Amino acid sequence: MNIYINPSKEKWAELTSRPNISSNEIVPLVNNILNKVKANGDDAVKELTLKFDGAIPSSLKVSDAEINDALLYLDNKLQQAMHFAASNIERFHSLQLPQVIRTETTPGVECWQKAVPINTVGLYIPGGTAPLFSTVLMLAIPARIAQCKNVILCTPPDKNGNINKAILYAAKLCGITEIYKIGGAQAIAAMAYGTVTIPKVDKIFGPGNQYVTTAKQLVSAQGIAIDMPAGPSEVMVIADETTPAEFAAADLLSQAEHGEDSQVILLSNKRGKIDDIIEETKQQLAQLPRKELAKKSLDNSLAIVFENEKSLVQFMNLYAPEHLILLSKNAEDIATQVTQAGSVFIGNYTPESAGDYASGTNHTLPTNGFASAYSGVNMDSFMKKITFQQISAKGLQELGPVIETMAEAELLQAHKNAVSVRLKAINS
Amino acid sequence: MNIYINPSKEKWAELTSRPNISSNEIVPLVNNILNKVKANGDDAVKELTLKFDGAIPSSLKVSDAEINDALLYLDNKLQQAMHFAASNIERFHSLQLPQVIRTETTPGVECWQKAVPINTVGLYIPGGTAPLFSTVLMLAIPARIAQCKNVILCTPPDKNGNINKAILYAAKLCGITEIYKIGGAQAIAAMAYGTVTIPKVDKIFGPGNQYVTTAKQLVSAQGIAIDMPAGPSEVMVIADETTPAEFAAADLLSQAEHGEDSQVILLSNKRGKIDDIIEETKQQLAQLPRKELAKKSLDNSLAIVFENEKSLVQFMNLYAPEHLILLSKNAEDIATQVTQAGSVFIGNYTPESAGDYASGTNHTLPTNGFASAYSGVNMDSFMKKITFQQISAKGLQELGPVIETMAEAELLQAHKNAVSVRLKAINS
Repeated sequence: MNIYINPSKEKWAELTSRPNISSNEIVPLVNNILNKVKANGDDAVKELTLKFDGAIPSSLKVSDAEINDALLYLDNKLQQAMHFAASNIERFHSLQLPQVIRTETTPGVECWQKAVPINTVGLYIPGGTAPLFSTVLMLAIPARIAQCKNVILCTPPDKNGNINKAILYAAKLCGITEIYKIGGAQAIAAMAYGTVTIPKVDKIFGPGNQYVTTAKQLVSAQGIAIDMPAGPSEVMVIADETTPAEFAAADLLSQAEHGEDSQVILLSNKRGKIDDIIEETKQQLAQLPRKELAKKSLDNSLAIVFENEKSLVQFMNLYAPEHLILLSKNAEDIATQVTQAGSVFIGNYTPESAGDYASGTNHTLPTNGFASAYSGVNMDSFMKKITFQQISAKGLQELGPVIETMAEAELLQAHKNAVSVRLKAINS
Repeated sequence: MNIYINPSKEKWAELTSRPNISSNEIVPLVNNILNKVKANGDDAVKELTLKFDGAIPSSLKVSDAEINDALLYLDNKLQQAMHFAASNIERFHSLQLPQVIRTETTPGVECWQKAVPINTVGLYIPGGTAPLFSTVLMLAIPARIAQCKNVILCTPPDKNGNINKAILYAAKLCGITEIYKIGGAQAIAAMAYGTVTIPKVDKIFGPGNQYVTTAKQLVSAQGIAIDMPAGPSEVMVIADETTPAEFAAADLLSQAEHGEDSQVILLSNKRGKIDDIIEETKQQLAQLPRKELAKKSLDNSLAIVFENEKSLVQFMNLYAPEHLILLSKNAEDIATQVTQAGSVFIGNYTPESAGDYASGTNHTLPTNGFASAYSGVNMDSFMKKITFQQISAKGLQELGPVIETMAEAELLQAHKNAVSVRLKAINS
């Protein structure tokens, strides 16, 4: 870790800046994939799947038999754990379901706002070394609570054309039965444009590698909604003299094992505690299967000592971390001062992995500083809010002259006239 | 208007498609402006303002004296109308302020979600022929209710370097005092990157011409949040045998006067009523100052007769209109079936212009079919929702094994370990 002591505010911009993950080189490659799928649909998808995943599934769509197989053979303890987590995620997200908001703004002028589910959503779940079934729960459960009509899931097949059983189990648990064996930019393209097999969706969710996230960004510029912009995962841990070094080290490492571009930041008011935590990190690192990956990420990470809590909190909010773990005695107080973060973990017994899996909060969160303007995935992500207004004759008599005056001042005569013809009819 | 009678469903995709507003040619021009401002800040802004607006304001920032001048000299009736509208907008948006949502998902596992204002927002208000002071109210009032710390406004100066008084008045009414005389893509660049004079913002709101909307799209791909993707304005009017043709015609024209690319759609179950409305439209059109513009838009517009209400409602939702005006006897019932639209106007005395100015709903709405996945501007637009979790020792004893099982199945050993070290400490 790179240690900074009381960095001056001039230095903060540099310390909060994220690594430049310029993906410009891959834009033409991804554009090429998007265009192929747009032009040749399923044929292009199959060709690209063979090329990138080394498999030609006999059918792009996962069969009922494959899903039932997952139900039968997935380890029982894992099944139970998933049910436990799903129940917490469901409880927390159900409470977020927006209510109709209604008021009479002027007598006779009724206005309301109603949240309506997005019709068709597409969830992308990466394949690769780790089967991210937890992300299935995080995306599919709120989609089901929102009552989205169609929820489809794309995930790449392995070399034998199969999908990981835990992913199939999680999907089934959340009521998703439309699962496609497609990965990469070709999956994003298929969901964005639609093919004979894969329906065009209204919004695309989910994490992925650079090809996937670039594809999401490109289709987003074409008007397909996406959950949020992407970037490497991050954790900020705040420690003081009371923090058990063992806990802080474990939390730093749980972020570091995600990949070499993971951002790991440790803030403290005590230089000594930072040394203890770094030392403990080294010891725990040695035991990890992913230690090579985690070590690279740690080498790039930052530990910063602040002379007072006020500066520390200012820096914390300026950084806008995806995950913020508060392990100091003032954790609860600091939590009330958080203005920019994805998700906050308060106190010594609240590791980030609780939120990654099972506390009930969502783990799809804004990273790369996007927490300054973006929320993590929540019920709003699966709905759109429509406004309604209904005006009585009496209401228009009251409100009409106001509209006429304003429309005229904006030189929009027809806007004014839409009121005038009605007022004339009412008054005649 | 182009009339279609009972179009087959195969034809619907074509009828709901929007004109292709490919702005690809202007992307390099806009990129050039963005890069200039990024590199040369205020100097570039001033140079571009002279070039595009024909003015060099002595100061980019509007002075207190200019604002006070607007307060003194703006027409009194317009002032009162703005206050009336502002009060309705404030009432409807205040009710949308999200509450903290809190629950104990598992004993000892407390989760909550809190909405926090976005720190710094930038509002863009176009200049040009019509001073869109109503958009100032629509963006600045929710920003103030959200308690965004910094709200800045950019709008282009006229050839004398001045800003329209109604815009200044509306800004002051909403508590905005940081107003800059900058328009076009250079204003979007200044707010996206910041200059010595203009602060970098977290999110950019507001309508604009192709340069402005292209600039917003380009900075959005660079990670600056924007309100929503842009497209030409639209209205869909639904009429039956009871609809006063005069009202429907006035509503169609109030959309058509926005510009030649405005989308105007009339749906009905009665061919005769469509003929009446078209006839009435011609008569009202002759009286309008913007009749040339409105006529071009009407020439491209659609009138469609459906044989039953079910098909009509299906088409309505598939089109996902920005503005939906229900002028039929079943208006209230149809309103309950709306699943895709920006804002809905119910009944004969509810013209679109009511929502454009003063009913209380927001007039910044998703167009171009984006209503399938996007909401209009509302309180959520000015806030981000942060999640929190706090777990007790007892809570972690309950939840910990679930997390360990799931983390292990995802091959994320360090995630598991962050729980294991804590459980070990609790149990020792």
